[in-house]
Amino acid sequence: MAPDGVPRPDSPVQARLLHMLRDEGPLSRADVGQRLGVTRARLAADVERLSGIGLVEHAGPAASRGGRRSTLVRLAPQVRFAGIDLGATSISAEVVDGELTPLAFVEEPADIRDGPSAVLDRVQEILGKLQAEGTYSSLAAIGMGVPGPVSFRDGVPASPPIMPGWDGYPVRDTLARANGCPAAIDNDVNIMIMGERHGGVARSLDDVLFVKIGTGIGCGIIVNGQLYRGNDGCAGDIGHIQADPAGPACSCGHVGCLEAVFGGAALGRSALAVARSGASPWLAERLACAGAVGARDVAEAAAAGDVASLGLIRDGGRAVGAVLAGLVSFFNPSMIVIGGGLSQLGHLLLADIRSVIYRRSLPLATHNLPVVLSELGPRAGVAGASLLASELVFGSPGTAEAGR
Amino acid sequence: MAPDGVPRPDSPVQARLLHMLRDEGPLSRADVGQRLGVTRARLAADVERLSGIGLVEHAGPAASRGGRRSTLVRLAPQVRFAGIDLGATSISAEVVDGELTPLAFVEEPADIRDGPSAVLDRVQEILGKLQAEGTYSSLAAIGMGVPGPVSFRDGVPASPPIMPGWDGYPVRDTLARANGCPAAIDNDVNIMIMGERHGGVARSLDDVLFVKIGTGIGCGIIVNGQLYRGNDGCAGDIGHIQADPAGPACSCGHVGCLEAVFGGAALGRSALAVARSGASPWLAERLACAGAVGARDVAEAAAAGDVASLGLIRDGGRAVGAVLAGLVSFFNPSMIVIGGGLSQLGHLLLADIRSVIYRRSLPLATHNLPVVLSELGPRAGVAGASLLASELVFGSPGTAEAGR
Repeated sequence: MAPDGVPRPDSPVQARLLHMLRDEGPLSRADVGQRLGVTRARLAADVERLSGIGLVEHAGPAASRGGRRSTLVRLAPQVRFAGIDLGATSISAEVVDGELTPLAFVEEPADIRDGPSAVLDRVQEILGKLQAEGTYSSLAAIGMGVPGPVSFRDGVPASPPIMPGWDGYPVRDTLARANGCPAAIDNDVNIMIMGERHGGVARSLDDVLFVKIGTGIGCGIIVNGQLYRGNDGCAGDIGHIQADPAGPACSCGHVGCLEAVFGGAALGRSALAVARSGASPWLAERLACAGAVGARDVAEAAAAGDVASLGLIRDGGRAVGAVLAGLVSFFNPSMIVIGGGLSQLGHLLLADIRSVIYRRSLPLATHNLPVVLSELGPRAGVAGASLLASELVFGSPGTAEAGR
Repeated sequence: MAPDGVPRPDSPVQARLLHMLRDEGPLSRADVGQRLGVTRARLAADVERLSGIGLVEHAGPAASRGGRRSTLVRLAPQVRFAGIDLGATSISAEVVDGELTPLAFVEEPADIRDGPSAVLDRVQEILGKLQAEGTYSSLAAIGMGVPGPVSFRDGVPASPPIMPGWDGYPVRDTLARANGCPAAIDNDVNIMIMGERHGGVARSLDDVLFVKIGTGIGCGIIVNGQLYRGNDGCAGDIGHIQADPAGPACSCGHVGCLEAVFGGAALGRSALAVARSGASPWLAERLACAGAVGARDVAEAAAAGDVASLGLIRDGGRAVGAVLAGLVSFFNPSMIVIGGGLSQLGHLLLADIRSVIYRRSLPLATHNLPVVLSELGPRAGVAGASLLASELVFGSPGTAEAGR
């Protein structure tokens, strides 16, 4: 029994069994016992315990392999986790079963600047609606990503630059109280890379970078299969690496930060500039009709062949590529995944990021380095948040307990 | 018994005991047994085994703590390791005892471009002389650092740019055969950071960068206390990160790489230029007398107040600082150590590196980030190489076996 009163596995064997059932689905007891190297009696006791706390159940006889038939065990079908991904301008929520299969996904616009009270109330309204619809009766755990640095241990945002009012707010404890279950929060990029590594394009890779290009730009880092947070928990803050010494001023007070050159906010400013200057007739027309232009309009304009918009995307890709080229030389990753809202610009953006990385970095580091788009796309965040939630209940070899 | 016929510890308890004795000196058996959580009988058997293979011995009664007196155990005093650090222009060699106490240190000029046969012959001559002087009768293991990428698993240099003739040469096996003991080789920066973390300024820190500024520039990386090599073993190759888009061409074919802007070779070229242009009367005079000027002359000139030389060092410090500022944002280390030959420029260089890092990186990542000079200085390489050698014999929780 953990300090929060929620029953959890009480041995490494139980934790490993839960992870196997989560990641592989129902398994025969004979198979599990063999793979975990435990006796039939020991496994029976462990299954009994996990069944007693409502996490697993028997599911009939296993397919015969000759000799005595074994029994299937599986995660209890009523187990539910919620994964929430707060963006600067959106809330995404997902409810999954114990095997992390999505049962419901909701995404709606929201402004993080409304502050924690309003935004977390809205999260509870969304969850309440999903509960009322029968998606779950109770949650085993909830995980959330937020668009800023987090003190993982304390469960609070830590001096987040674009989240006024959230600094030090007890987000984790608020979620836990409101939902009557364990909760965890992490930086959004950290949950995205964990989601992508568990069920996306970076499956099981050891040394991976996940670059989120949204309103801002950040990077998740996996080292030897484990999330790397850095000494103060702020590793991956690549949005403030200088991309262009002659570039625009950044909100952080420096000049030419990657985030000041590209990213959703910067692209919106550039779009407005080319619309007003007449360099883009397409964006000028959109500005005249809608009264505003943003990153989405640039994507649309580029798809329609607007030369200025294509140029903005290519320039942005080259700036991202230049910063990543340096990180490839330093970190020598096995894969770079590009995600976040602006990754919807797709292969046009990817082509320029790739070309700069492959041109600038040394051949030894790039000869087998895939630079790819996120496979989970807009679901990467909630998938990682659900995974984080499951680790709270199933235990973890490192992820959930790795915070400092 | 290992495949190479050299006896090693055959249990984790024995390996841990050897590490304790290496790092702490003689210990009482009662103390060791308690700390390792093993019975008196089990420990006696382990000590017996290690004594049988010549690695430990008894050293009389321990100081009384009341009750029955315990016995001291220590590493056998005849155990010897050799650590070799090949630079682009030098060979350093050290012989240490089992506790890694230096018994002899030799440094002499050498040109890595003479090729493996000539350079490794010279290494054996140095070792032969130390042996003839009685520093050792036989080596338990030998470790070596080389100034280029290494395939750790194969024990060979891997496409090293400044080591003509060394690519794929069986350096490890040559060393092992010549000295009749296990051998290991690694990149020079990797051994320097391990040396500095074991017995220098980065003692026991988790997330550290060691920046070597010698003829070239490279970076050692420690993540969670373990050396990080990257997916292809070439992590830390920061000499080819672009420091100045308008900078000089680099030998790698790109433009403005950090190594083309600063480092021993670049500083030598700059020194020649300011000597010839008349911008530095001091260097002009040295050039006239000696026929050449190099990095050492710049250091001397700067110490004598030569304005142009001071400027070269400050510009170099700023270029290094700009690259490191980006890496601080990405990696959020707990310490940056500056080492290598040019670190002898000392605090003048350090001041500019620091000022750029502290100015450019975000406060959260720098508020408690020490940027310091190597404590071991020219000994960092051989100290790390000796440590690497000791891990070959004493076993390791990660270092020696972490290569891929």
